[in-house]
Amino acid sequence: MKKLVNNPVNVVDEMVEGYVRAHPDYIKQLSSNNRALVTVRETKQNKVGILIGGGSGHEPGFMGYVGEGMADGVAVGNIFSSPSPDPILEVTKSINKESGVVYLYGNYAGDVMNFGMAAEMADLEEDIEVGMAIATDDVASAPKEEKEKRRGIAGELFIYKAAGAAADFGCNLEEVVRIARKANDHTWSMGVGTSPCYHPQTGKPSFEIGDDEMEIGLGHHGEPGLEKGPLETADKLADRLLNDILIDSGITKGDEVAVLVNGLGSTPKMDLYIVYRRVEQILSEQGIKIYCSYVGDYITSLEMGGCSVTLMKLDDELTKVMDHPVNCPMFVQK
Amino acid sequence: MKKLVNNPVNVVDEMVEGYVRAHPDYIKQLSSNNRALVTVRETKQNKVGILIGGGSGHEPGFMGYVGEGMADGVAVGNIFSSPSPDPILEVTKSINKESGVVYLYGNYAGDVMNFGMAAEMADLEEDIEVGMAIATDDVASAPKEEKEKRRGIAGELFIYKAAGAAADFGCNLEEVVRIARKANDHTWSMGVGTSPCYHPQTGKPSFEIGDDEMEIGLGHHGEPGLEKGPLETADKLADRLLNDILIDSGITKGDEVAVLVNGLGSTPKMDLYIVYRRVEQILSEQGIKIYCSYVGDYITSLEMGGCSVTLMKLDDELTKVMDHPVNCPMFVQK
Repeated sequence: MKKLVNNPVNVVDEMVEGYVRAHPDYIKQLSSNNRALVTVRETKQNKVGILIGGGSGHEPGFMGYVGEGMADGVAVGNIFSSPSPDPILEVTKSINKESGVVYLYGNYAGDVMNFGMAAEMADLEEDIEVGMAIATDDVASAPKEEKEKRRGIAGELFIYKAAGAAADFGCNLEEVVRIARKANDHTWSMGVGTSPCYHPQTGKPSFEIGDDEMEIGLGHHGEPGLEKGPLETADKLADRLLNDILIDSGITKGDEVAVLVNGLGSTPKMDLYIVYRRVEQILSEQGIKIYCSYVGDYITSLEMGGCSVTLMKLDDELTKVMDHPVNCPMFVQK
Repeated sequence: MKKLVNNPVNVVDEMVEGYVRAHPDYIKQLSSNNRALVTVRETKQNKVGILIGGGSGHEPGFMGYVGEGMADGVAVGNIFSSPSPDPILEVTKSINKESGVVYLYGNYAGDVMNFGMAAEMADLEEDIEVGMAIATDDVASAPKEEKEKRRGIAGELFIYKAAGAAADFGCNLEEVVRIARKANDHTWSMGVGTSPCYHPQTGKPSFEIGDDEMEIGLGHHGEPGLEKGPLETADKLADRLLNDILIDSGITKGDEVAVLVNGLGSTPKMDLYIVYRRVEQILSEQGIKIYCSYVGDYITSLEMGGCSVTLMKLDDELTKVMDHPVNCPMFVQK
């Protein structure tokens, strides 16, 4: 394991410091908590605040998505660990514009607990109304009937985008929550891991895998997938991932989708576009219309190898939020 | 070596196909040559055309930089190999708006030969005037007195940006060439490699390196660097890279710079921001003002590990080109 770091104990704080210094026109740390970052832009009074967060190691997720059209603030956790309630509460207080704050995070026990506690504190101590939408897009992580048990993976990007746009459009808290949850209900992802990442402090790989193996349905912290098998071609892999998504989602001929092919960290853009090529072929063959596409590293797992495919089934409302422009340090859309 | 590919012989063509299908609102292949890609946007009549290109494997370089504010077209080569004159000529013919075309590429023998041949053919066969600016930003690759012998690495991003903006501003061919060359003269990079990439067809690593070693000054095809040494901390590495740049460039107190910390492919954003943190500290200590910063994977080498640091010394003219907005599939700046 080779890392460009200093003392591994400090990686998150040093990354955050570097990030804030690289993008002072976008983001700042709150003086009350250095893991609490908020936008520097003036947001409209009464705009619902959008708060995101989770463990570090998923960059650009999550701090890369604070900015115009996306989140107003982020609570930063340790590597692959939820932030504690404290930075979440500090961000909440800072971004509340008298219309409440919506928390967006992935469905992991630590996040559910810490964001839940922060929401209670915001309500009881600060009289701030908090809504929540929890990402559960990972098809591989639980059966269809138990979508609420599924993990959140790269599809979180679309949920942030939906909520950020809704808040910009002037929706109230209830509406922003509705649209964010609808975005989640319309979003399905399937991932594959080919090589692990290494925790900077322990040096341990996130999972074990043979030299000619891949793991279908692997979670983005190395959680076990559906099955380990021989490394397949990009086309066969795309066939498999997309097939699982199409069966689970019921997306079919005549539907319109947003597509995300997300790299986990060390997979070249070349490979991602080769996977996208096949995804586009299949969707086209099946009469499913691609409205917009994102290909790149959007939610990573340090230097993990592999990718995920995400489809979001669009309707007029979701098309409108996907069109909304974004201006964040690590994601800009005109 | 694990890749998400099909037949390795087809990686470039399949990548290009995936890319064009992912971004049909931005880019298209010319029917005359599938390695010749051009913007789909309407460019102003008489705008000088900007043509970029080089080997594949550097994505987002180079095809990711075709769009508003950057290049009008790109010629795509095989992995780490120059495109032949044919796609270069086809792009030239397509993007020429009666004001000539400027070629931007890195200082590699194959590129110099092929772009040179294409320029001659454009002149003799098509009566199109061609100008050129060749990137030579890699401090490690030749002594200061022989800057014209240096390789082009990540600093090419700034040269594209300068030329793209100048062409948008309505400058004529001579002026665009002058500004692009000036951008190159004001740009210095230093890289480090920690792990090789693997050629999809041969499966061979781009260089050999020990488990606890790094190579300072490594080129982005694995060309030998200045020295191999033990893996250093991010801070010590940043000190070394920046020190070499500052000595070579003469950038000093009171100067203003654009900064790029570029990942080579598999280096987490976490590590890049930790390196940036130290770069910012040093520049701040030395009284050098950072005007703007870019941190991420801008010119990669497949899954190579490592990064580079680039400084561009700004004046009023170069500040103006850096401010110019960009809208490309893999790089958007508002």
